[in-house]
Amino acid sequence: MDPLTARQLIEDFIHDCAHCIDDDRLEEWPSYFVEDCRYTIIDRESFAADLPVGIMTCDSRGMLEDRVRALREANIYEPHCYRHLISGIRVRDVDGDVYRVQSSYAVIRTMQEGDISVFSSGKFLDEIVVRDDSLQFRQRIVVCDSNRIDTLIVIPL
Amino acid sequence: MDPLTARQLIEDFIHDCAHCIDDDRLEEWPSYFVEDCRYTIIDRESFAADLPVGIMTCDSRGMLEDRVRALREANIYEPHCYRHLISGIRVRDVDGDVYRVQSSYAVIRTMQEGDISVFSSGKFLDEIVVRDDSLQFRQRIVVCDSNRIDTLIVIPL
Amino acid sequence: MDPLTARQLIEDFIHDCAHCIDDDRLEEWPSYFVEDCRYTIIDRESFAADLPVGIMTCDSRGMLEDRVRALREANIYEPHCYRHLISGIRVRDVDGDVYRVQSSYAVIRTMQEGDISVFSSGKFLDEIVVRDDSLQFRQRIVVCDSNRIDTLIVIPL
Repeated sequence: MDPLTARQLIEDFIHDCAHCIDDDRLEEWPSYFVEDCRYTIIDRESFAADLPVGIMTCDSRGMLEDRVRALREANIYEPHCYRHLISGIRVRDVDGDVYRVQSSYAVIRTMQEGDISVFSSGKFLDEIVVRDDSLQFRQRIVVCDSNRIDTLIVIPL
Repeated sequence: MDPLTARQLIEDFIHDCAHCIDDDRLEEWPSYFVEDCRYTIIDRESFAADLPVGIMTCDSRGMLEDRVRALREANIYEPHCYRHLISGIRVRDVDGDVYRVQSSYAVIRTMQEGDISVFSSGKFLDEIVVRDDSLQFRQRIVVCDSNRIDTLIVIPL
Repeated sequence: MDPLTARQLIEDFIHDCAHCIDDDRLEEWPSYFVEDCRYTIIDRESFAADLPVGIMTCDSRGMLEDRVRALREANIYEPHCYRHLISGIRVRDVDGDVYRVQSSYAVIRTMQEGDISVFSSGKFLDEIVVRDDSLQFRQRIVVCDSNRIDTLIVIPL
Protein backbone atom coordinates (compact mmCIF):
# COMPACT_ATOMS: atom_id res chain seq x y z
CA MET A 1 0.00 0.00 0.00
CA ASP A 2 1.36 3.43 -0.82
CA PRO A 3 2.50 5.31 2.29
CA LEU A 4 0.11 8.27 1.87
CA THR A 5 -2.95 6.02 1.69
CA ALA A 6 -1.78 3.95 4.66
CA ARG A 7 -1.10 7.12 6.65
CA GLN A 8 -4.57 8.47 6.09
CA LEU A 9 -6.30 5.16 6.77
CA ILE A 10 -4.38 4.85 10.05
CA GLU A 11 -5.19 8.41 11.14
CA ASP A 12 -8.87 7.91 10.36
CA PHE A 13 -8.92 4.56 12.16
CA ILE A 14 -7.37 5.95 15.35
CA HIS A 15 -9.71 8.95 15.35
CA ASP A 16 -12.77 6.79 14.67
CA CYS A 17 -11.90 4.56 17.63
CA ALA A 18 -11.79 7.68 19.83
CA HIS A 19 -15.10 8.99 18.44
CA CYS A 20 -16.67 5.57 19.13
CA ILE A 21 -15.79 5.90 22.84
CA ASP A 22 -16.66 9.60 23.11
CA ASP A 23 -19.99 9.09 21.34
CA ASP A 24 -20.79 6.31 23.86
CA ARG A 25 -20.98 3.60 21.18
CA LEU A 26 -18.91 1.34 23.44
CA GLU A 27 -20.39 -1.88 22.04
CA GLU A 28 -18.55 -1.09 18.78
CA TRP A 29 -15.22 -0.59 20.53
CA PRO A 30 -14.07 -4.26 20.62
CA SER A 31 -14.58 -4.49 16.85
CA TYR A 32 -11.55 -2.19 16.47
CA PHE A 33 -9.40 -5.09 17.68
CA VAL A 34 -8.47 -8.46 16.15
CA GLU A 35 -9.69 -11.57 17.96
CA ASP A 36 -6.27 -12.37 19.38
CA CYS A 37 -5.39 -8.88 20.57
CA ARG A 38 -3.71 -7.25 23.51
CA TYR A 39 -4.92 -4.05 25.17
CA THR A 40 -2.88 -2.77 28.10
CA ILE A 41 -3.00 0.33 30.27
CA ILE A 42 0.30 0.92 32.03
CA ASP A 43 1.93 3.88 33.77
CA ARG A 44 5.00 5.58 32.37
CA GLU A 45 7.43 4.40 35.04
CA SER A 46 6.42 0.75 34.92
CA PHE A 47 6.61 0.83 31.14
CA ALA A 48 10.09 2.40 31.20
CA ALA A 49 11.22 -0.24 33.73
CA ASP A 50 9.84 -2.92 31.40
CA LEU A 51 7.60 -4.23 34.16
CA PRO A 52 5.28 -6.79 32.65
CA VAL A 53 2.28 -5.87 34.77
CA GLY A 54 0.04 -3.09 33.61
CA ILE A 55 -2.85 -1.53 35.45
CA MET A 56 -5.18 -3.42 33.20
CA THR A 57 -4.65 -5.97 30.45
CA CYS A 58 -7.07 -7.67 28.10
CA ASP A 59 -5.70 -10.55 26.05
CA SER A 60 -8.55 -11.13 23.63
CA ARG A 61 -11.44 -9.36 21.99
CA GLY A 62 -13.75 -11.39 24.24
CA MET A 63 -12.21 -9.74 27.29
CA LEU A 64 -12.85 -6.32 25.78
CA GLU A 65 -16.48 -7.31 25.22
CA ASP A 66 -16.75 -8.47 28.84
CA ARG A 67 -15.35 -5.16 29.94
CA VAL A 68 -17.98 -3.21 28.01
CA ARG A 69 -20.76 -5.43 29.36
CA ALA A 70 -19.52 -4.94 32.95
CA LEU A 71 -19.41 -1.21 32.38
CA ARG A 72 -22.98 -1.12 31.08
CA GLU A 73 -24.20 -3.06 34.12
CA ALA A 74 -22.09 -1.18 36.65
CA ASN A 75 -23.51 1.41 39.00
CA ILE A 76 -21.18 4.26 38.37
CA TYR A 77 -21.18 6.67 41.25
CA GLU A 78 -21.39 9.73 39.11
CA PRO A 79 -22.02 9.67 35.36
CA HIS A 80 -19.33 11.22 33.21
CA CYS A 81 -18.15 11.32 29.65
CA TYR A 82 -14.80 11.42 27.91
CA ARG A 83 -13.39 13.49 25.09
CA HIS A 84 -10.21 12.28 23.39
CA LEU A 85 -7.74 14.66 21.83
CA ILE A 86 -5.15 12.83 19.77
CA SER A 87 -2.06 14.49 18.37
CA GLY A 88 1.13 13.49 16.61
CA ILE A 89 0.09 10.23 14.98
CA ARG A 90 3.37 8.84 13.57
CA VAL A 91 4.04 5.56 11.81
CA ARG A 92 7.32 4.28 13.28
CA ASP A 93 7.72 0.98 11.55
CA VAL A 94 6.08 -1.31 8.98
CA ASP A 95 6.37 -5.10 9.05
CA GLY A 96 4.28 -6.71 6.30
CA ASP A 97 0.76 -5.50 6.91
CA VAL A 98 1.44 -4.48 10.53
CA TYR A 99 2.12 -0.81 11.25
CA ARG A 100 3.68 0.34 14.52
CA VAL A 101 2.25 3.72 15.36
CA GLN A 102 2.88 6.24 18.16
CA SER A 103 0.50 9.03 19.14
CA SER A 104 -0.15 11.38 22.05
CA TYR A 105 -3.51 11.65 23.78
CA ALA A 106 -5.33 13.63 26.40
CA VAL A 107 -8.70 12.62 27.76
CA ILE A 108 -10.95 15.38 29.09
CA ARG A 109 -13.54 14.12 31.56
CA THR A 110 -16.81 15.96 32.11
CA MET A 111 -18.86 14.96 35.15
CA GLN A 112 -22.64 15.21 34.96
CA GLU A 113 -22.45 17.92 37.61
CA GLY A 114 -20.36 19.90 35.16
CA ASP A 115 -16.78 19.64 36.42
CA ILE A 116 -14.30 19.46 33.55
CA SER A 117 -10.75 18.19 34.00
CA VAL A 118 -7.91 16.49 32.21
CA PHE A 119 -8.44 12.91 33.35
CA SER A 120 -5.42 11.32 31.71
CA SER A 121 -2.65 12.11 29.25
CA GLY A 122 -0.07 9.85 27.71
CA LYS A 123 0.75 8.00 24.55
CA PHE A 124 -0.69 5.17 22.52
CA LEU A 125 1.74 2.57 21.15
CA ASP A 126 -0.26 0.68 18.56
CA GLU A 127 0.25 -2.25 16.27
CA ILE A 128 -2.34 -1.96 13.54
CA VAL A 129 -3.07 -4.62 10.95
CA VAL A 130 -3.91 -2.97 7.61
CA ARG A 131 -5.60 -5.20 5.03
CA ASP A 132 -7.01 -3.33 2.05
CA ASP A 133 -9.07 -0.65 3.74
CA SER A 134 -9.89 -2.77 6.79
CA LEU A 135 -7.86 -1.89 9.88
CA GLN A 136 -7.70 -3.44 13.35
CA PHE A 137 -5.52 -3.15 16.42
CA ARG A 138 -3.37 -6.19 17.13
CA GLN A 139 -1.99 -4.39 20.14
CA ARG A 140 -2.67 -1.10 21.89
CA ILE A 141 -0.49 -0.10 24.83
CA VAL A 142 -1.78 2.98 26.65
CA VAL A 143 1.17 4.52 28.51
CA CYS A 144 -0.26 7.00 31.03
CA ASP A 145 1.90 9.93 32.10
CA SER A 146 0.62 9.64 35.65
CA ASN A 147 1.65 6.90 38.06
CA ARG A 148 -1.52 7.38 40.03
CA ILE A 149 -4.32 5.99 37.96
CA ASP A 150 -7.77 5.13 39.21
CA THR A 151 -7.81 1.38 39.66
CA LEU A 152 -11.34 1.70 38.37
CA ILE A 153 -10.87 3.25 34.97
CA VAL A 154 -14.42 2.73 33.90
CA ILE A 155 -14.55 3.89 30.31
CA PRO A 156 -11.68 2.61 28.14
CA LEU A 157 -8.94 5.07 27.22
CA MET B 1 -13.42 17.17 -6.22
CA ASP B 2 -11.02 14.35 -5.36
CA PRO B 3 -11.38 13.16 -1.77
CA LEU B 4 -7.78 13.96 -0.72
CA THR B 5 -8.05 17.57 -1.86
CA ALA B 6 -11.44 17.99 -0.20
CA ARG B 7 -10.14 16.45 3.00
CA GLN B 8 -7.21 18.84 3.21
CA LEU B 9 -9.29 21.90 2.33
CA ILE B 10 -11.79 20.97 5.05
CA GLU B 11 -9.10 20.40 7.68
CA ASP B 12 -7.46 23.71 6.83
CA PHE B 13 -10.79 25.52 6.89
CA ILE B 14 -11.77 24.19 10.32
CA HIS B 15 -8.35 25.01 11.76
CA ASP B 16 -8.33 28.49 10.22
CA CYS B 17 -11.69 29.24 11.80
CA ALA B 18 -10.24 28.27 15.18
CA HIS B 19 -7.11 30.37 14.63
CA CYS B 20 -9.32 33.32 13.71
CA ILE B 21 -11.03 33.14 17.12
CA ASP B 22 -7.86 32.40 19.09
CA ASP B 23 -5.96 35.23 17.37
CA ASP B 24 -8.80 37.60 18.34
CA ARG B 25 -9.71 38.36 14.72
CA LEU B 26 -13.39 37.95 15.62
CA GLU B 27 -14.61 40.33 12.93
CA GLU B 28 -13.50 37.72 10.37
CA TRP B 29 -15.37 34.91 12.07
CA PRO B 30 -18.82 35.46 10.43
CA SER B 31 -17.19 35.26 6.99
CA TYR B 32 -16.65 31.56 7.64
CA PHE B 33 -20.43 31.11 7.32
CA VAL B 34 -22.82 31.40 4.39
CA GLU B 35 -25.44 34.16 4.60
CA ASP B 36 -28.25 31.75 5.39
CA CYS B 37 -26.44 29.73 8.04
CA ARG B 38 -27.18 28.13 11.37
CA TYR B 39 -24.82 28.18 14.35
CA THR B 40 -26.00 26.42 17.49
CA ILE B 41 -24.42 25.64 20.84
CA ILE B 42 -26.23 22.82 22.61
CA ASP B 43 -25.42 20.48 25.48
CA ARG B 44 -24.92 16.76 24.95
CA GLU B 45 -28.09 15.64 26.72
CA SER B 46 -30.42 18.06 24.95
CA PHE B 47 -28.85 17.10 21.64
CA ALA B 48 -29.28 13.37 22.33
CA ALA B 49 -32.92 13.99 23.33
CA ASP B 50 -33.40 15.87 20.07
CA LEU B 51 -34.54 18.96 21.97
CA PRO B 52 -34.84 21.80 19.50
CA VAL B 53 -33.60 24.50 21.86
CA GLY B 54 -29.91 25.07 22.14
CA ILE B 55 -28.13 27.33 24.57
CA MET B 56 -27.57 29.74 21.76
CA THR B 57 -28.65 29.79 18.14
CA CYS B 58 -27.88 32.20 15.33
CA ASP B 59 -29.90 31.80 12.14
CA SER B 60 -28.00 34.09 9.80
CA ARG B 61 -24.60 35.59 9.23
CA GLY B 62 -26.04 38.93 10.35
CA MET B 63 -26.76 37.47 13.78
CA LEU B 64 -23.17 36.29 14.03
CA GLU B 65 -22.01 39.79 13.15
CA ASP B 66 -24.30 41.25 15.84
CA ARG B 67 -22.84 38.82 18.29
CA VAL B 68 -19.29 39.94 17.55
CA ARG B 69 -20.28 43.62 17.80
CA ALA B 70 -21.98 43.01 21.16
CA LEU B 71 -18.89 41.22 22.37
CA ARG B 72 -16.61 44.09 21.37
CA GLU B 73 -18.82 46.60 23.19
CA ALA B 74 -19.41 44.43 26.25
CA ASN B 75 -17.76 45.03 29.58
CA ILE B 76 -16.33 41.64 30.26
CA TYR B 77 -15.72 41.13 33.93
CA GLU B 78 -12.29 39.64 33.45
CA PRO B 79 -10.46 39.52 30.13
CA HIS B 80 -9.59 36.07 28.87
CA CYS B 81 -8.57 34.28 25.72
CA TYR B 82 -9.31 30.94 24.18
CA ARG B 83 -7.17 28.25 22.59
CA HIS B 84 -8.87 25.62 20.44
CA LEU B 85 -7.51 22.12 20.09
CA ILE B 86 -9.28 20.20 17.36
CA SER B 87 -8.83 16.48 16.82
CA GLY B 88 -10.36 13.74 14.72
CA ILE B 89 -11.75 15.71 11.79
CA ARG B 90 -13.76 13.13 9.83
CA VAL B 91 -15.90 13.57 6.75
CA ARG B 92 -19.03 11.49 7.39
CA ASP B 93 -21.08 12.20 4.30
CA VAL B 94 -21.02 14.11 1.02
CA ASP B 95 -24.12 15.46 -0.69
CA GLY B 96 -23.26 17.43 -3.83
CA ASP B 97 -20.94 20.17 -2.63
CA VAL B 98 -21.98 19.85 1.03
CA TYR B 99 -19.73 17.85 3.35
CA ARG B 100 -20.94 16.63 6.74
CA VAL B 101 -17.98 16.62 9.09
CA GLN B 102 -17.49 15.55 12.71
CA SER B 103 -14.60 16.67 14.92
CA SER B 104 -13.69 16.83 18.60
CA TYR B 105 -12.63 20.03 20.34
CA ALA B 106 -11.34 21.32 23.63
CA VAL B 107 -11.13 25.00 24.43
CA ILE B 108 -8.49 26.08 26.94
CA ARG B 109 -9.31 29.39 28.62
CA THR B 110 -6.59 31.62 30.03
CA MET B 111 -7.69 34.47 32.30
CA GLN B 112 -5.67 37.67 32.36
CA GLU B 113 -4.77 36.87 35.96
CA GLY B 114 -3.14 33.70 34.64
CA ASP B 115 -5.53 30.89 35.54
CA ILE B 116 -5.61 28.21 32.85
CA SER B 117 -8.44 25.69 32.59
CA VAL B 118 -10.35 23.53 30.15
CA PHE B 119 -13.37 25.75 29.52
CA SER B 120 -15.32 23.42 27.25
CA SER B 121 -14.96 20.15 25.38
CA GLY B 122 -17.28 18.53 22.91
CA LYS B 123 -17.78 17.95 19.24
CA PHE B 124 -18.48 20.02 16.15
CA LEU B 125 -21.06 18.71 13.70
CA ASP B 126 -20.54 20.76 10.57
CA GLU B 127 -22.10 21.11 7.17
CA ILE B 128 -19.52 22.72 4.94
CA VAL B 129 -20.18 23.99 1.43
CA VAL B 130 -17.10 23.38 -0.73
CA ARG B 131 -16.98 25.32 -4.03
CA ASP B 132 -13.61 25.17 -5.77
CA ASP B 133 -11.28 26.19 -2.98
CA SER B 134 -13.81 28.41 -1.24
CA LEU B 135 -15.37 26.86 1.86
CA GLN B 136 -18.10 28.06 4.21
CA PHE B 137 -20.18 26.61 7.02
CA ARG B 138 -23.85 26.13 6.19
CA GLN B 139 -24.34 24.74 9.66
CA ARG B 140 -22.19 24.32 12.75
CA ILE B 141 -23.64 22.53 15.77
CA VAL B 142 -21.41 22.73 18.84
CA VAL B 143 -22.35 19.84 21.13
CA CYS B 144 -20.80 20.56 24.55
CA ASP B 145 -19.98 17.61 26.80
CA SER B 146 -21.09 19.58 29.85
CA ASN B 147 -24.71 20.30 30.68
CA ARG B 148 -23.68 23.30 32.72
CA ILE B 149 -22.61 25.95 30.29
CA ASP B 150 -22.19 29.60 31.07
CA THR B 151 -25.31 31.29 29.76
CA LEU B 152 -22.89 34.02 28.82
CA ILE B 153 -20.45 32.31 26.53
CA VAL B 154 -18.77 35.46 25.42
CA ILE B 155 -16.29 34.37 22.79
CA PRO B 156 -17.72 31.93 20.20
CA LEU B 157 -16.69 28.29 20.46
CA MET C 1 8.80 20.59 -3.47
CA ASP C 2 5.15 19.82 -4.08
CA PRO C 3 2.88 21.33 -1.45
CA LEU C 4 1.40 18.03 -0.24
CA THR C 5 4.82 16.52 0.42
CA ALA C 6 6.02 19.69 2.18
CA ARG C 7 2.88 19.80 4.27
CA GLN C 8 3.30 16.25 5.49
CA LEU C 9 7.01 16.62 6.17
CA ILE C 10 6.30 19.75 8.21
CA GLU C 11 3.52 18.13 10.22
CA ASP C 12 5.70 15.11 10.96
CA PHE C 13 8.62 17.31 11.93
CA ILE C 14 6.61 19.41 14.37
CA HIS C 15 5.04 16.32 15.95
CA ASP C 16 8.40 14.52 16.19
CA CYS C 17 9.89 17.50 18.01
CA ALA C 18 7.04 17.29 20.54
CA HIS C 19 7.45 13.51 20.94
CA CYS C 20 11.19 14.05 21.54
CA ILE C 21 10.40 16.30 24.54
CA ASP C 22 7.53 14.19 25.85
CA ASP C 23 9.58 10.99 25.58
CA ASP C 24 12.34 12.69 27.60
CA ARG C 25 14.88 12.47 24.77
CA LEU C 26 15.88 16.07 25.46
CA GLU C 27 19.45 15.63 24.20
CA GLU C 28 17.96 15.23 20.70
CA TRP C 29 15.93 18.42 20.96
CA PRO C 30 18.64 20.92 19.84
CA SER C 31 19.17 18.88 16.64
CA TYR C 32 15.75 20.09 15.51
CA PHE C 33 17.28 23.57 15.12
CA VAL C 34 19.86 25.00 12.71
CA GLU C 35 23.14 26.19 14.23
CA ASP C 36 22.22 29.85 13.89
CA CYS C 37 18.68 29.61 15.26
CA ARG C 38 16.41 31.59 17.51
CA TYR C 39 14.09 30.06 20.11
CA THR C 40 11.96 32.47 22.11
CA ILE C 41 9.21 32.05 24.69
CA ILE C 42 7.11 35.20 24.99
CA ASP C 43 3.71 36.03 26.44
CA ARG C 44 0.80 37.07 24.24
CA GLU C 45 0.65 40.69 25.38
CA SER C 46 4.35 41.37 24.98
CA PHE C 47 4.26 39.75 21.55
CA ALA C 48 1.27 41.84 20.46
CA ALA C 49 3.00 45.00 21.71
CA ASP C 50 6.06 43.98 19.70
CA LEU C 51 8.21 44.06 22.83
CA PRO C 52 11.59 42.63 21.95
CA VAL C 53 12.15 40.88 25.26
CA GLY C 54 10.76 37.41 25.69
CA ILE C 55 10.68 35.36 28.85
CA MET C 56 13.49 33.29 27.45
CA THR C 57 15.56 33.50 24.29
CA CYS C 58 18.24 31.25 22.89
CA ASP C 59 20.20 32.60 19.92
CA SER C 60 22.07 29.50 18.85
CA ARG C 61 21.91 25.75 18.96
CA GLY C 62 24.72 25.83 21.52
CA MET C 63 22.48 27.76 23.91
CA LEU C 64 19.79 25.11 23.50
CA GLU C 65 22.35 22.43 24.32
CA ASP C 66 23.43 24.38 27.43
CA ARG C 67 19.82 24.58 28.45
CA VAL C 68 19.36 20.83 28.22
CA ARG C 69 22.59 20.19 30.16
CA ALA C 70 21.49 22.62 32.90
CA LEU C 71 18.16 20.88 33.08
CA ARG C 72 19.77 17.45 33.45
CA GLU C 73 22.00 18.71 36.29
CA ALA C 74 19.30 20.74 38.02
CA ASN C 75 17.63 19.64 41.20
CA ILE C 76 14.02 19.95 40.25
CA TYR C 77 11.83 20.25 43.29
CA GLU C 78 9.25 17.82 42.06
CA PRO C 79 9.69 15.66 38.99
CA HIS C 80 7.12 16.11 36.29
CA CYS C 81 6.57 15.33 32.63
CA TYR C 82 4.94 17.09 29.73
CA ARG C 83 2.52 16.02 27.03
CA HIS C 84 2.15 18.23 23.96
CA LEU C 85 -1.07 18.43 22.01
CA ILE C 86 -0.61 20.26 18.73
CA SER C 87 -3.48 21.32 16.52
CA GLY C 88 -4.03 23.45 13.44
CA ILE C 89 -0.63 23.25 11.77
CA ARG C 90 -0.90 25.75 8.89
CA VAL C 91 1.73 26.84 6.41
CA ARG C 92 1.30 30.62 6.09
CA ASP C 93 4.09 31.53 3.73
CA VAL C 94 6.94 30.02 1.71
CA ASP C 95 10.15 31.87 0.88
CA GLY C 96 12.60 29.66 -1.02
CA ASP C 97 13.15 26.68 1.26
CA VAL C 98 11.86 28.47 4.38
CA TYR C 99 8.27 27.77 5.46
CA ARG C 100 6.47 30.01 7.94
CA VAL C 101 4.10 27.85 9.94
CA GLN C 102 1.52 28.58 12.65
CA SER C 103 0.13 25.99 15.06
CA SER C 104 -1.71 25.83 18.37
CA TYR C 105 -0.43 23.89 21.37
CA ALA C 106 -1.39 22.85 24.86
CA VAL C 107 1.04 21.27 27.26
CA ILE C 108 -0.38 18.95 29.92
CA ARG C 109 1.88 18.62 32.95
CA THR C 110 1.77 15.54 35.17
CA MET C 111 3.54 15.78 38.52
CA GLN C 112 5.09 12.63 39.99
CA GLU C 113 2.54 12.84 42.79
CA GLY C 114 -0.15 12.51 40.13
CA ASP C 115 -1.60 16.00 39.69
CA ILE C 116 -2.52 16.68 36.07
CA SER C 117 -3.07 20.20 34.75
CA VAL C 118 -2.84 22.30 31.64
CA PHE C 119 0.53 23.93 32.17
CA SER C 120 0.59 26.20 29.13
CA SER C 121 -1.34 26.89 25.96
CA GLY C 122 -0.52 29.15 23.06
CA LYS C 123 0.81 29.12 19.55
CA PHE C 124 4.03 28.25 17.80
CA LEU C 125 5.23 30.61 15.06
CA ASP C 126 7.89 28.67 13.23
CA GLU C 127 10.32 29.24 10.40
CA ILE C 128 11.32 25.84 9.12
CA VAL C 129 14.08 25.18 6.60
CA VAL C 130 13.07 22.29 4.33
CA ARG C 131 15.91 20.72 2.31
CA ASP C 132 14.96 17.45 0.63
CA ASP C 133 13.53 15.49 3.52
CA SER C 134 15.71 17.17 6.14
CA LEU C 135 13.91 19.82 8.19
CA GLN C 136 15.13 22.18 10.91
CA PHE C 137 13.78 25.19 12.76
CA ARG C 138 15.45 28.48 11.90
CA GLN C 139 13.15 30.18 14.34
CA ARG C 140 10.52 29.06 16.84
CA ILE C 141 8.55 31.70 18.74
CA VAL C 142 6.38 30.23 21.49
CA VAL C 143 3.60 32.74 22.21
CA CYS C 144 2.01 31.74 25.54
CA ASP C 145 -1.61 32.69 26.15
CA SER C 146 -0.83 33.43 29.80
CA ASN C 147 1.04 36.50 30.96
CA ARG C 148 2.05 34.72 34.12
CA ILE C 149 4.64 32.18 33.17
CA ASP C 150 6.97 30.42 35.54
CA THR C 151 10.31 32.18 35.26
CA LEU C 152 11.68 28.70 35.62
CA ILE C 153 10.19 26.84 32.71
CA VAL C 154 12.33 23.80 33.14
CA ILE C 155 11.45 21.57 30.24
CA PRO C 156 11.28 23.34 26.87
CA LEU C 157 7.86 24.04 25.38
